[in-house]
Amino acid sequence: MLKKLSKLIKLINKNLLKYLKYKNEFPSVIFKAVRYSVFAGGKRIRPVLLLLTSKAYGMNIKYVMPVACGIEMIHTYSLIHDDLPAMDNDDYRRGKLTSHKKFGEAIAILAGDALLTKAFETFCECNRFISDEKLLKVIKLISDASGINGMVGGQAADILFENKNVSKKTLDFIHSHKTGALIKASILSGAILSGADKNELKLWDRFGEIVGLIFQITDDILDVTSTTKKLGKTAGKDAKQKKATFPAIYGLEKSRKIVLKLLLEAKKILYKIKRPTRDILNLVTYIATREN
Amino acid sequence: MLKKLSKLIKLINKNLLKYLKYKNEFPSVIFKAVRYSVFAGGKRIRPVLLLLTSKAYGMNIKYVMPVACGIEMIHTYSLIHDDLPAMDNDDYRRGKLTSHKKFGEAIAILAGDALLTKAFETFCECNRFISDEKLLKVIKLISDASGINGMVGGQAADILFENKNVSKKTLDFIHSHKTGALIKASILSGAILSGADKNELKLWDRFGEIVGLIFQITDDILDVTSTTKKLGKTAGKDAKQKKATFPAIYGLEKSRKIVLKLLLEAKKILYKIKRPTRDILNLVTYIATREN
Repeated sequence: MLKKLSKLIKLINKNLLKYLKYKNEFPSVIFKAVRYSVFAGGKRIRPVLLLLTSKAYGMNIKYVMPVACGIEMIHTYSLIHDDLPAMDNDDYRRGKLTSHKKFGEAIAILAGDALLTKAFETFCECNRFISDEKLLKVIKLISDASGINGMVGGQAADILFENKNVSKKTLDFIHSHKTGALIKASILSGAILSGADKNELKLWDRFGEIVGLIFQITDDILDVTSTTKKLGKTAGKDAKQKKATFPAIYGLEKSRKIVLKLLLEAKKILYKIKRPTRDILNLVTYIATREN
Repeated sequence: MLKKLSKLIKLINKNLLKYLKYKNEFPSVIFKAVRYSVFAGGKRIRPVLLLLTSKAYGMNIKYVMPVACGIEMIHTYSLIHDDLPAMDNDDYRRGKLTSHKKFGEAIAILAGDALLTKAFETFCECNRFISDEKLLKVIKLISDASGINGMVGGQAADILFENKNVSKKTLDFIHSHKTGALIKASILSGAILSGADKNELKLWDRFGEIVGLIFQITDDILDVTSTTKKLGKTAGKDAKQKKATFPAIYGLEKSRKIVLKLLLEAKKILYKIKRPTRDILNLVTYIATREN
């Protein structure tokens, strides 16, 4: 699995570089800032999920690569803006200086804006093997998942509820929007672009929700149990900032049990989909058991 | 003309409100922040340009309204982010407090992000009277014009060259990218969506460039000659921040002459296009002679 995964990641990186290289790079610092954050060692979980979902339908991943890369750009923009002093105020991300620490706040804001915009331009790079209708459906889905009713709304809630007592309902809202929405959209996009039918899309929808939850709960757990060195970002920050997290509300033990339960449900759904999805299951298992 | 214009603006505002009202508005402050800036009294020049270009082809403006509204969202997001303390640090815009002054920096950044994302979702609202192919062409055009090779690149250059001696070439770059690119894209989008042919698109392209220049030079002139009250934003700010502007490089008199020359060229191009474009010419004349 890890070998297959690293091959996919290499391919994604190669394509990201292709989309983010320009003939005229003026003023150069903004182009540097964009690539700095995109190539800061991300795990590429979202584009990999999209590609693996497509592969389950026998799709040539080359055809859906622009959408996979665009989603990674949206993810990267969200990290750059989340790290800003006015937001989470983080100095390190993936073991490297955050964008505003490296290039200053103005350029960091603009680098995020540039990436979000470039994502939509990149989606349009899909060639004639993807129908215009499917592509527009996916653009609508991803913009909805990234915007005020998705990722941006989740980040807003996360900031507004800092240092406050948070109910389980609000925790669910923050997680499902801030992280879950784009992960789910990645999986759904792969399924839509590859011709999944209505019934299958329902299953992928719930599967996407579960993967988002597994990812976020594991993230919360690692913030408590791991070290800054291993994580590449400041460990223990959630508790310090009194962030709404699973361990804070359920405790570590119960949080771990929830992950296992969700993993089991994910397996059952994949079984129902009746497609060659072993690689996806392996990836989700990796997400649940990762150490950073 | 002004009556026609105010009718169009009302229609745009009605549609913007429709797109920016949600069933579930949680957390409410981010939804409020988004509408606060969109309905802060903008002149809607970009969507009006798009609609009038479409009308010259007999297009029912209802069909292209989602694209017109999406472009206004992109314009508004760019103002919110430009006003941030790390960027131009403006307290007032259109006579009202800027977003970060009203809602705080974090929410202002997120409101901008939400609007940029929502623009692309809104584009997808075009119904079957606009072909998917044309819509995708326009999405690509607008994302290119708004991104690192357009508006974002222009804003980056504007900030990087603050307090520096700027050549005419750099001034041209900043203007054509920061303001010109989206104005041109508005006009071109209207033409593409309404079925303009290749030859006409070339003419609209140059026309769009000219309108962008007229808009920006007039803006630069007003910053010198107008008052804060009339402008609704701090007058004289460009000189104070040693911004690259036309009056700074050419002087007021020559800048005014350039505007008149461009206006003449705009007229000539419209004559060549041989469509009913009197409303557009009136609008461009208004842009060149406006007082705020």
